[in-house]
Amino acid sequence: MQTQATMLETSKVPGTSVYGMSRESIGEVDDLIVDTISGKVRYAVLSFGGFLGLGKSSYVIPWTSLKWDADLNGYVTGVTEEQLKMSPDLDPLSIRDREMEQRLHSAYGAPQYWDTESRV
Amino acid sequence: MQTQATMLETSKVPGTSVYGMSRESIGEVDDLIVDTISGKVRYAVLSFGGFLGLGKSSYVIPWTSLKWDADLNGYVTGVTEEQLKMSPDLDPLSIRDREMEQRLHSAYGAPQYWDTESRV
Repeated sequence: MQTQATMLETSKVPGTSVYGMSRESIGEVDDLIVDTISGKVRYAVLSFGGFLGLGKSSYVIPWTSLKWDADLNGYVTGVTEEQLKMSPDLDPLSIRDREMEQRLHSAYGAPQYWDTESRV
Repeated sequence: MQTQATMLETSKVPGTSVYGMSRESIGEVDDLIVDTISGKVRYAVLSFGGFLGLGKSSYVIPWTSLKWDADLNGYVTGVTEEQLKMSPDLDPLSIRDREMEQRLHSAYGAPQYWDTESRV
């Protein structure tokens, strides 16, 4: 079944707002990380200005933790302060094996894309 | 079977070189277009400086027409001057139905992703 396509220019993504579950603005998207083998967006790099007094300036979050909200014109996420604090600190380009991806998805309680896709 | 992942920061893509089949530099990538439903890169926006005296400044090319070449540190394409001249002139964000996607893939003789993917 074909769903109507909605195309996104990746060059326009940096600066897109990210909202928490109460629809409060918490940060923004700095970058999208694509797996070149599958051609799929797998992670987003987010920054959280003064949000919750977090230490790091940017975080690599599984793409499945973000949901586009057309009304807000931004992404909504259920990611918590605790998860951010406990998350592995890594360079997105260093993600190369399933073990690391598993660790990253677990840290955010994010659906693992390899469980739901027939081709990974 | 799991292939080792290679991650790409989409913010770094603009400016990446594009080479022709004889490995001559012909242009560069300006943008990547992602289908937000599938999360997949579907098109690239390319610009061809003085290449072949083309009229338009940028072209929307199916992602399947580009192949990453690690040695060249850029993308290689078999797209021809004739194909570029005959290609539909469109805004990537206007791509919404399969008919338009078919027209665009046909214009470049590009493999249709919906033929090769089990989930589209």
